[in-house]
Amino acid sequence: MKKYGFGVDIGGTTCKIGLFEAAGQVVDKWEIPTDKREAGKNILPDIAASLQQKMAEKSIPSEAIEGIGIGIPGPVDGNGMVSMCVNLGWKNMDVPQEMQSLMGGIPVKAGNDANVAALGEMWQGGGKGCQDLVMVTLGTGVGGGIIIHGQIVAGANGAGGEIGHITVNPHESIACNCGRKGCLEQYASATGIARLAKERLAQEHRKSLLDQMEEISAKSVFDAYKQQDQTAGEIVEKFARILGNALSNIACVADPEVFVIGGGVSKAGMPLLEAVEKYYKRAAFSSCADTKFALASLGNDAGIYGGVKMVLE
Amino acid sequence: MKKYGFGVDIGGTTCKIGLFEAAGQVVDKWEIPTDKREAGKNILPDIAASLQQKMAEKSIPSEAIEGIGIGIPGPVDGNGMVSMCVNLGWKNMDVPQEMQSLMGGIPVKAGNDANVAALGEMWQGGGKGCQDLVMVTLGTGVGGGIIIHGQIVAGANGAGGEIGHITVNPHESIACNCGRKGCLEQYASATGIARLAKERLAQEHRKSLLDQMEEISAKSVFDAYKQQDQTAGEIVEKFARILGNALSNIACVADPEVFVIGGGVSKAGMPLLEAVEKYYKRAAFSSCADTKFALASLGNDAGIYGGVKMVLE
Repeated sequence: MKKYGFGVDIGGTTCKIGLFEAAGQVVDKWEIPTDKREAGKNILPDIAASLQQKMAEKSIPSEAIEGIGIGIPGPVDGNGMVSMCVNLGWKNMDVPQEMQSLMGGIPVKAGNDANVAALGEMWQGGGKGCQDLVMVTLGTGVGGGIIIHGQIVAGANGAGGEIGHITVNPHESIACNCGRKGCLEQYASATGIARLAKERLAQEHRKSLLDQMEEISAKSVFDAYKQQDQTAGEIVEKFARILGNALSNIACVADPEVFVIGGGVSKAGMPLLEAVEKYYKRAAFSSCADTKFALASLGNDAGIYGGVKMVLE
Repeated sequence: MKKYGFGVDIGGTTCKIGLFEAAGQVVDKWEIPTDKREAGKNILPDIAASLQQKMAEKSIPSEAIEGIGIGIPGPVDGNGMVSMCVNLGWKNMDVPQEMQSLMGGIPVKAGNDANVAALGEMWQGGGKGCQDLVMVTLGTGVGGGIIIHGQIVAGANGAGGEIGHITVNPHESIACNCGRKGCLEQYASATGIARLAKERLAQEHRKSLLDQMEEISAKSVFDAYKQQDQTAGEIVEKFARILGNALSNIACVADPEVFVIGGGVSKAGMPLLEAVEKYYKRAAFSSCADTKFALASLGNDAGIYGGVKMVLE
């Protein structure tokens, strides 16, 4: 194993980059803007230039770099191929090949950002010490990453771990962003929780802390929940039941050691985790009833950790 | 790679055994009875004696055997440990260690029989050429096996691929064998299809081929379906919708290249496959809508093929 590796997490606005020692310590981390103009053709060259600049600055030769692992905000197949990435404007991009030729042959791997973040949390975060893990990212949407035998499940179509699009309510009338109806994401994302709250408040006669809020968000719901607000409690219970039930079904497929919950909504912390775990236990197949739950701990750095881990395996 | 390997599939009544060449050809296959007396303590010694006899008969020395792979009818963890196997009477059985010591040190692996059968179908059956596969076994119950990157997903609790216990109907009033309510197995197994049929016939006024049957079974439903019987058609559509929807959710987790459908019910053949695939496509997340469907092709031999494949990796 060589001494260093790079982890790169490409986002729609910025690319996060980390220089790591092979054992897992961050040597340096920084960000560069993501230039999405002209179908994103400058993104990889910009990253390559930034990596080379850092190597020059620290006098690190190419020979000391084990590889570069890159997270992409869209579907990526098991070979790092991106057929379409709406967030970056890419079509048919062979990320490892492009980047490797920009970096003079240093090995490159690429994966979907949610999957890569899951690998990061397995390596140095909330799932440390586990080899089989399901990460659930509760943000604007619901993302997921499945790690089996310590490796990302990219899926045959780059849709491995797309757990936000499990159908949890076949009777839903409103469409999900994906065009289908009743996806987990419609109930368990920040947007989904705010929607559950608005629906509940519209038919609520009791007083609630949420009445005074100008804008109802997932955060305001969890804040009120922590203050024992009854209406907020019912909203959280509904969210937790839907998510806990969905995770119990995922356990009948992947049977992970741990569910790691991350994303903005997870800032609600232990009360959220406990509510979801309660419903999970009720719904779970007996063999899996004791699966652990943990909060993600790497925050926005999960992607760079997972990125470098891909090439340090 | 040595020249030979053994695949063993332990069932409640008989143990199927296959002697294979490493490239995949069956040299010989046979069965011995499963002796479940005294907490199944004779099962592994009986198998070992049978293997040794076969080796003597064919003049095959231990040094020519790559290993022995064994399928067990119950949960098995990633190391081949069985904490409890009701079907054989076993408790806390370290199958690889026990068998290895009976066989003079030949390497042994063990896995759950449905998972091992999935590996067999990947190697030489309906999923040949694929590395990511979900096998669905529609028998008395609904079993499953998940293969990712060519390897069995045993799961942290030996429950990987227990897809028969995905909850598909939270409003079910009748209990599944597992004690929970609304499991896939209650609708998509042979027993489940017969139940759907009986429920449908109880409220049916139209004439149906099924009226004359003494005993309604999954087979009789599919036979009537193939003769364009309308009532049977509606029963099959309901079964196919429930199974197709469940598989679309599994695809959001594991995103396999192919779903391989096996077990007794799958003898209904292409009409069954087409009905399930139709509902799968309707429900699937767009990236996974074109996942292939195939019939299992190894029948009762899938277990011995998968068994030996475990040790030939």
